[in-house]
Amino acid sequence: MPRYALKIEYDGAPFAGWQRQAVLASVQGAVEAALGRLEPGPHTIAAAGRTDTGVHATGQVAHCDLGKDWDPFRLAGALNAHLKPLPVAVVAAARVGEDFHARFSAIERRYLFRLLARRAPEVHDRGRVWRVPHPLDGAAMCEAAAHLVGRHDFTTFRAIGCQAASPVKTLDELMLETVEVPNGVEYRFRLRARSFLHNQVRSIVGTLERVGAGAWAPDRVKEALEARDRAACGPVCPPQGLYLTGVGYPADPFAAT
Amino acid sequence: MPRYALKIEYDGAPFAGWQRQAVLASVQGAVEAALGRLEPGPHTIAAAGRTDTGVHATGQVAHCDLGKDWDPFRLAGALNAHLKPLPVAVVAAARVGEDFHARFSAIERRYLFRLLARRAPEVHDRGRVWRVPHPLDGAAMCEAAAHLVGRHDFTTFRAIGCQAASPVKTLDELMLETVEVPNGVEYRFRLRARSFLHNQVRSIVGTLERVGAGAWAPDRVKEALEARDRAACGPVCPPQGLYLTGVGYPADPFAAT
Repeated sequence: MPRYALKIEYDGAPFAGWQRQAVLASVQGAVEAALGRLEPGPHTIAAAGRTDTGVHATGQVAHCDLGKDWDPFRLAGALNAHLKPLPVAVVAAARVGEDFHARFSAIERRYLFRLLARRAPEVHDRGRVWRVPHPLDGAAMCEAAAHLVGRHDFTTFRAIGCQAASPVKTLDELMLETVEVPNGVEYRFRLRARSFLHNQVRSIVGTLERVGAGAWAPDRVKEALEARDRAACGPVCPPQGLYLTGVGYPADPFAAT
Repeated sequence: MPRYALKIEYDGAPFAGWQRQAVLASVQGAVEAALGRLEPGPHTIAAAGRTDTGVHATGQVAHCDLGKDWDPFRLAGALNAHLKPLPVAVVAAARVGEDFHARFSAIERRYLFRLLARRAPEVHDRGRVWRVPHPLDGAAMCEAAAHLVGRHDFTTFRAIGCQAASPVKTLDELMLETVEVPNGVEYRFRLRARSFLHNQVRSIVGTLERVGAGAWAPDRVKEALEARDRAACGPVCPPQGLYLTGVGYPADPFAAT
């Protein structure tokens, strides 16, 4: 059966996360249902990142096996027609080898977190950013973030229920971009690693926000990391600012699309 | 009675435009109702730009007269509390003199139009951009746009029902910015003039899109302008990409906020 890689964008708001659920709507369930309109199922697709409830994606990658030999361009269009009106779109599709696995072949995950500082309620980006009503100190957040880059035991920044075999991960990048937006300032955190622990990004951003607000000194983040204690973490921030923006593979399956 | 200027942001989707209507929801009606929760009404507010159904704003300006001497910072907060959960927010408020009139004192209006070129349906910016499924030629659109800058008779780019006394307007700026966005290219048109004719921005962008798509040569826009004939205009584009981003006054009422 020919295998296809799909690059998928979605708004996480109406879904109980990526993973298929018995009752609640999921992104995986939506894509599998669209596949079922093209070829009789059942279909089971695997994704690089199993995003939580309310988390968005601009570059999720999943793979599927189909019976027919589909032109990838037409496959994306047909899936999008069947996904309507859900806020899910296949933005690229590519034929891949049988050894490609969206999750196990991935060597990098990239996330963006959008944190908006402004007093007035958000209007155009409602549900797409985490807004705080106070100003933030970008330089202090940068200073604190630097403590987290590299190979560390991230027990402090890991959900209690996290199933990963080890809390040791290498955070290859944690960049902070400050963007003047209409009537506010947006802080964009970009994180890159081979893989992440459950709730790692939201635990990190929630803690860095405390630094930006002046409640934590930047060095307290270093102490929290070294404590290897979940209780040392700042508050976990809400999901609506988080986006899975890309997945890296040894060879980009979408290079030719 | 003390007079206040309000800087207002809104998502135009749920409203039949700015202007108060007998039955349909309007932004003016929403803000006036919120004012009525602070002080007994009726309240009648005036705005710099009476945006059409579905058009957004990040920098609309209106003024209101109140009985009480409000601290402007608290006034904005109280209005936002009463505007919830509507996608309307007062992002700044300022005390102004009795001679200030949001509409008649304005000497400049600024608009942004967001045009997204990508094949897949839009996900995160649904209702906030006009998407076309084909690629666009940014350089050709820039070349065509240059014909429209300056003082011209804009009869071609004016709605049939436009009530302005004269079709002659000076377009001070028409800039096009090309932005790579996830899975597409966004073209941002920024227009600036003392005032605009009804449907002028959407008539211009709808015409320039035809140039970007290759259906019109850039010079055809010059010919259309010189024809002074509504029939020479390209298609008027939909409202959801349009934002009133700012209003200029001889002295910025929000300079101190």
